[in-house]
Amino acid sequence: MTDTAAALSAVLGAKGWLSPPDTTPYARDWLDRYGIEPLGVARPAGTQEVAEVVRICQRAGVAIVPQGGNTGLCGGAVAVMPDTVILSLSRMAAIGEPDPDSGSILVEAGAVLASLHEALEPHGLIFPLHLGAEGSARIGGLIGTNAGGSHAFRYGMMQDLVLGLEVVLPDGTVWNGLRAVQKDNAGYQLRKLFCGAEGTLGIVTRAVLKLHPAPRQRATALLALPDFAAAVAFGTELRREAGEFLSGLEFFCDAGLELALKHLPDLAFPLGARGPVYLLVELASGSPRIPLDDILSSALEHGMEQELVTDGALAMSDAQRAHFWRLREEQPEGQRLEGEQLKHDISVPPGKLAAFITAGQEICHGILPGVRINPFGHLGDGNIHYNLSPPEGRPGFDGKAGEIGRALAALATGMGGSFAAEHGLGRSKIALADDLRSAVERDLMARLKDALDPSGLMNPGVLLKAKEERKTFE
Amino acid sequence: MTDTAAALSAVLGAKGWLSPPDTTPYARDWLDRYGIEPLGVARPAGTQEVAEVVRICQRAGVAIVPQGGNTGLCGGAVAVMPDTVILSLSRMAAIGEPDPDSGSILVEAGAVLASLHEALEPHGLIFPLHLGAEGSARIGGLIGTNAGGSHAFRYGMMQDLVLGLEVVLPDGTVWNGLRAVQKDNAGYQLRKLFCGAEGTLGIVTRAVLKLHPAPRQRATALLALPDFAAAVAFGTELRREAGEFLSGLEFFCDAGLELALKHLPDLAFPLGARGPVYLLVELASGSPRIPLDDILSSALEHGMEQELVTDGALAMSDAQRAHFWRLREEQPEGQRLEGEQLKHDISVPPGKLAAFITAGQEICHGILPGVRINPFGHLGDGNIHYNLSPPEGRPGFDGKAGEIGRALAALATGMGGSFAAEHGLGRSKIALADDLRSAVERDLMARLKDALDPSGLMNPGVLLKAKEERKTFE
Repeated sequence: MTDTAAALSAVLGAKGWLSPPDTTPYARDWLDRYGIEPLGVARPAGTQEVAEVVRICQRAGVAIVPQGGNTGLCGGAVAVMPDTVILSLSRMAAIGEPDPDSGSILVEAGAVLASLHEALEPHGLIFPLHLGAEGSARIGGLIGTNAGGSHAFRYGMMQDLVLGLEVVLPDGTVWNGLRAVQKDNAGYQLRKLFCGAEGTLGIVTRAVLKLHPAPRQRATALLALPDFAAAVAFGTELRREAGEFLSGLEFFCDAGLELALKHLPDLAFPLGARGPVYLLVELASGSPRIPLDDILSSALEHGMEQELVTDGALAMSDAQRAHFWRLREEQPEGQRLEGEQLKHDISVPPGKLAAFITAGQEICHGILPGVRINPFGHLGDGNIHYNLSPPEGRPGFDGKAGEIGRALAALATGMGGSFAAEHGLGRSKIALADDLRSAVERDLMARLKDALDPSGLMNPGVLLKAKEERKTFE
Repeated sequence: MTDTAAALSAVLGAKGWLSPPDTTPYARDWLDRYGIEPLGVARPAGTQEVAEVVRICQRAGVAIVPQGGNTGLCGGAVAVMPDTVILSLSRMAAIGEPDPDSGSILVEAGAVLASLHEALEPHGLIFPLHLGAEGSARIGGLIGTNAGGSHAFRYGMMQDLVLGLEVVLPDGTVWNGLRAVQKDNAGYQLRKLFCGAEGTLGIVTRAVLKLHPAPRQRATALLALPDFAAAVAFGTELRREAGEFLSGLEFFCDAGLELALKHLPDLAFPLGARGPVYLLVELASGSPRIPLDDILSSALEHGMEQELVTDGALAMSDAQRAHFWRLREEQPEGQRLEGEQLKHDISVPPGKLAAFITAGQEICHGILPGVRINPFGHLGDGNIHYNLSPPEGRPGFDGKAGEIGRALAALATGMGGSFAAEHGLGRSKIALADDLRSAVERDLMARLKDALDPSGLMNPGVLLKAKEERKTFE
């Protein structure tokens, strides 16, 4: 046992310090692409213990990688260098009492998102962030990656939902920014800076989150559309006619539906005829006095008159509503069961979605003829999960994965979008960021990192190259 | 003429460089508390000219103060040291075509907020930031101060409405972050950091702003309430019953109403009886199919049954609606006409508004018996404009202004709120920030400032003390 491990073990006790082989469940990332056995896993029980861990590591020159629910897709929450400490806040998972008059709640960073959802249910309040991993993802990780999800276009991303933060800084001091107000212009917006910093500027230990009243009624429809241009046009119409209630505006295409239906035999397709493109539309309202079904039916009829929509069904029960959502949400699972796949997390201005899909297909087929393309995602904010399967009957991508990824990322960038929409950069996308973002931008980020973490021990090599590996961005 | 003035004049030409005495209109702040004659006013015509101004000043060691519409209330946009250059983007006021499918627009930072509102009108879109100074305030200043206003609790503050930015950095390089997507997690959230930085980290030259569909119907009511506790409780009920439409939730009290009625004789009070507290409630919806009037009337009836509301009137015409708003918005003018006044810009968690008002009154009357208190503001986000007039018949505050300000700021801070809710720190509140925020927080901000503006020439002495005057925050 090294001196550092001994010091951490002494501070944290048996429940708070795991050594190999007990560290194995923490060692690899979700997609099993990154991670070696760490020196150990620190599981502190409170903010002062987190601060002590950071100070011990800082003195010893030991790198710290914070890990939430370990559901990230970019390899940002595991160790890649020997003698790294993984810091897990899984023992700091307390959820406070919500304040309904202020619309806020205090939580510890280790709380699981789904547990927060459950805790709020009896209070008629929601924390409106939803994503596939919500059963495992922890608040600290969601803050670190500035998580988005299906409802972000209505309620915002994590940075829009954080009112206050407590952060253990790289030198082991504690910043108490646990305020509970939206309007706080007393200096730089530190709370926003820590959202999306991927643990490279400090460890978020507690947060005051913004809550919303729970919807008391919903209307959900599944629509078939002739093409993506129609989806964009119909999306604009829905925002105009039902903008206040629109809480889901998900798109997918027939190739993805086919993968889900093929691999998940309990799924059934509810419309009369298949269409090349589908929209899942959901309206939700706090007031029971809004004619949501009427508004949605009438938008749907209007869409059909304009030939933007070819077919559609309104969910008649909660079970049917859940089934409609599964048709969209099981697509990653359907594609995973199909075999090898390539994932891209892209955003473009929503009005450019159709243009991106057309140009992206041309690019992909030019690089690897026959590659199967499955774009799906969130039309409301132009977030496309652009996933690929190999050409029919082939096991892989013929070594073209990198070329395809770079070309799609460049296409999105040229359209005013992003090649890292909601999953962050982690380790897997820093080379893309170095290529596609200006030297000025990367230098700005490096200055921030070096100013707040001069020794570079907080999650090194994530979001930016480690200091000694950055040549220069000039 | 100094060498710097000569160099700037050569680059900018006669329209682009003003020397004294032509600089006089730019010299003093809105409240006439700060400002000396600057070396000159630079009025560049484009981003490259801005960059050239910054490079020339940087080489010469000349400080730059960016000035938007000069409507700030904290003295952050004028010169206080000799030989300072004021940088005005008033010649960079172009407003692009809105993109309705993406819900965004590109504007130059010198555009006036009201001009943007007007430009959007024919498109059925809104930029939902509204505040008293909108006829003069410019987009760059609104970004620099992270402006809030009356609709922030529904649509967000400036930082929530900025998708992309172009910024001339302190070394004269240009950061092009003009992306047009909400979801961009490729590194630190630079766009959020520049919002509210008060021009201390660079000059915002262009921005991509988020647009919303224009409301097509509104319902507005003026209510009298028995006390602030009732206002908080009724606010919670309104968020639950009409949360999606609530676009105004303003409070004021009888003392403030009286000042407005006294000094603005064309104002009339529309209710049967005066109440100690008033709420101005406005619902707005994009869909014409929502029974907004019914929803508001029914909430109002329910409030009366619960004795949260004692009287109320729904606006029956646009003229009446405008009149209701004037009763709230003319309060600063009424108070100004009454004579000497003290302004405080405070936020507390909305649920603590009543407690703040009670404790604040006790504090103020303890320090200066008889001081007249006029709290009004935005209940939705707990933002209180807590303005004072001297005791009846007295000309001033007996030298107690500072003591009152510090006590109120400490009260708000202790409640999880802020002493600088939406006006920023500027010059007038940095001492408060040094007193009331932790050394850790002020040190974090100083690190950011020094990392991005190492020579300290960008708006020195604003938001933070100038480097040489900061002893240490430890």
